[in-house]
Amino acid sequence: MDARFDGETVRAGKTGRERFYDSRGYGRPREAGIELAPVEAAHLLFRGDLAGVVDERPESPTAGQRLEFEDLLASAAVPEVAFFVYKELRDRGFYLSPARTGWVADTSGDFVVYPRGNGPWDEAVAYRILAVSERERVRAASLLALAASPDATGVLAVVDEESEVTYLELAVPTITGSTQYHLASLTGTLLSDRVLIPEPPAALHDRAFYGQPLDRDDRSVQLSLVEAAYLARQELLALAGIGNATETLTARGRKVEGERFDRRLRAYSALRTAGIVPKTGFKFGADFRTYADVDSVDQLGHSETLVRVVPAGHVFDPRDLALDVRLAHGVRKRLIVALTDVDEGIDWLAVERLTP
Amino acid sequence: MDARFDGETVRAGKTGRERFYDSRGYGRPREAGIELAPVEAAHLLFRGDLAGVVDERPESPTAGQRLEFEDLLASAAVPEVAFFVYKELRDRGFYLSPARTGWVADTSGDFVVYPRGNGPWDEAVAYRILAVSERERVRAASLLALAASPDATGVLAVVDEESEVTYLELAVPTITGSTQYHLASLTGTLLSDRVLIPEPPAALHDRAFYGQPLDRDDRSVQLSLVEAAYLARQELLALAGIGNATETLTARGRKVEGERFDRRLRAYSALRTAGIVPKTGFKFGADFRTYADVDSVDQLGHSETLVRVVPAGHVFDPRDLALDVRLAHGVRKRLIVALTDVDEGIDWLAVERLTP
Repeated sequence: MDARFDGETVRAGKTGRERFYDSRGYGRPREAGIELAPVEAAHLLFRGDLAGVVDERPESPTAGQRLEFEDLLASAAVPEVAFFVYKELRDRGFYLSPARTGWVADTSGDFVVYPRGNGPWDEAVAYRILAVSERERVRAASLLALAASPDATGVLAVVDEESEVTYLELAVPTITGSTQYHLASLTGTLLSDRVLIPEPPAALHDRAFYGQPLDRDDRSVQLSLVEAAYLARQELLALAGIGNATETLTARGRKVEGERFDRRLRAYSALRTAGIVPKTGFKFGADFRTYADVDSVDQLGHSETLVRVVPAGHVFDPRDLALDVRLAHGVRKRLIVALTDVDEGIDWLAVERLTP
Repeated sequence: MDARFDGETVRAGKTGRERFYDSRGYGRPREAGIELAPVEAAHLLFRGDLAGVVDERPESPTAGQRLEFEDLLASAAVPEVAFFVYKELRDRGFYLSPARTGWVADTSGDFVVYPRGNGPWDEAVAYRILAVSERERVRAASLLALAASPDATGVLAVVDEESEVTYLELAVPTITGSTQYHLASLTGTLLSDRVLIPEPPAALHDRAFYGQPLDRDDRSVQLSLVEAAYLARQELLALAGIGNATETLTARGRKVEGERFDRRLRAYSALRTAGIVPKTGFKFGADFRTYADVDSVDQLGHSETLVRVVPAGHVFDPRDLALDVRLAHGVRKRLIVALTDVDEGIDWLAVERLTP
């Protein structure tokens, strides 16, 4: 069978179409024959299902010669990251197509993967996959676009330096909880990094889960600056001897963290507004751990999520994502990233390990 | 008993010295009496062992009045982070002293902690502690100085927003392994992000643990760019059709990662030179996992450490350290940070969770 490579597409005739498209979901039919993406042709060459493709690239030094698997892999047309992801999913029994214009309706990501047993001739899509190397950074916008796929699960596939593939499922989480409480206004004392409430109402900590008692046997409750700033904005907290509590607390927060304090406060506020209680996630290396349904601190279950707050335009290092996801998985919590602008809204992104 | 606070020191008389220094290791004796650091006085006030201290701060609005625990905690003289660490270690049964000039010989860090049963009247020091809030960033130099303490274990104590204290032990690790191998020179093909060695000697992967076979049934080995660049520098690898392999590989590495590639290569080279095999640490969110004593890949044990490569002047976010340390602990590996300059040496820092 003759297959010809023009630098962008590999074309073969009727036999190719029958063997590769009709029975195994490679490529797209074109006229009587078949079009293959270079990565698909590389896979067929690797498996020995194609015996070379004829080089028809204009100005190629090997024009007219037969190219083998190694030649295609060494060409810019087949990034090995794409090849490894393609191969890995084929090895798992999936049919998939490169997200080429004209081949698939939604070209975000690099591949669409069909549900097991389905192929390009069916309507359904299981996963929409972006493939990157562990060394490559990924913009938040790309991940959010995949997470929002209406018809498929968005997936970031990271190829590590040993060419193993890790799949991270991307989703837009629902941020909602049922924590309700009533608090009367409080007055506190500003310390350097906290606010002390010497005689708090019991509801403050035990019911609404703000702050932490200073000591086992002590009634005083200490609030973190982010908790205090939130309560001050809600007009539930005043500071002894200080006119504008909100302003003072925000300035104090920024002194150490800069703009990051504003982002954390914004995420904190959004979670509280949704009926969720955020507490420090420090022990898990996160900004917050959260409790969706606090009724009383005495009957507190485990926190359900770990929240990492990053700037809206964040560029992710896949290693950091892998770290967060692995730790969250180990403690049976869901990782949620809050992409938070100082002045605008928050995009929420849930990331978890996936085995397709 | 009369105790007087001048803004920097609390002073009391002979009874104070007997009760606080002689029997419980607070402060330092001065003449017949005792000097206390404000954080020590705050602890005595908190416990009810002191009934207020007289405010002798010049220009204080409360001059001449008696200050309580809350007053001291609200003053700049007692950062609550220091108070929480001091209290936590006292609760654990340790005596400790603030690292004040004139009190201790080495004033690096915030506290010196004496071995259990010892106190300031003894020579021995168990821990030298730097106390920070989870919101505060810490310079590498501070951590390295503590790690290098000749007479004590260096510790970073992080106070989270609920005032719980996490102790991270800092040490200078010994970087040495026993992996030895002999390799003849190789020729490979440069792909976009890897180097392919179509017919490698068996020793390359199975003995020296470079690269990864392309597939279970395939003889070809793929090298990561960092492995290839190292081998090229050792003059063990040439690239087909490319004159200067080292230069080409380094340029390719930088294209995606920038300067970070150079740092990773530097750390990789130092580990290899020490007889240690670094492989990607991606699955653990690290730069490398390492094997100190590879004899053959068939008999490979678990990797022993996770290595994170950061710039020499790195400023640590305690949350990131907590994340790395917790993950490493969970997979029973030691976390090692390689503070790596592009052109200069590497400072190695081992960090692990400590329960004093």
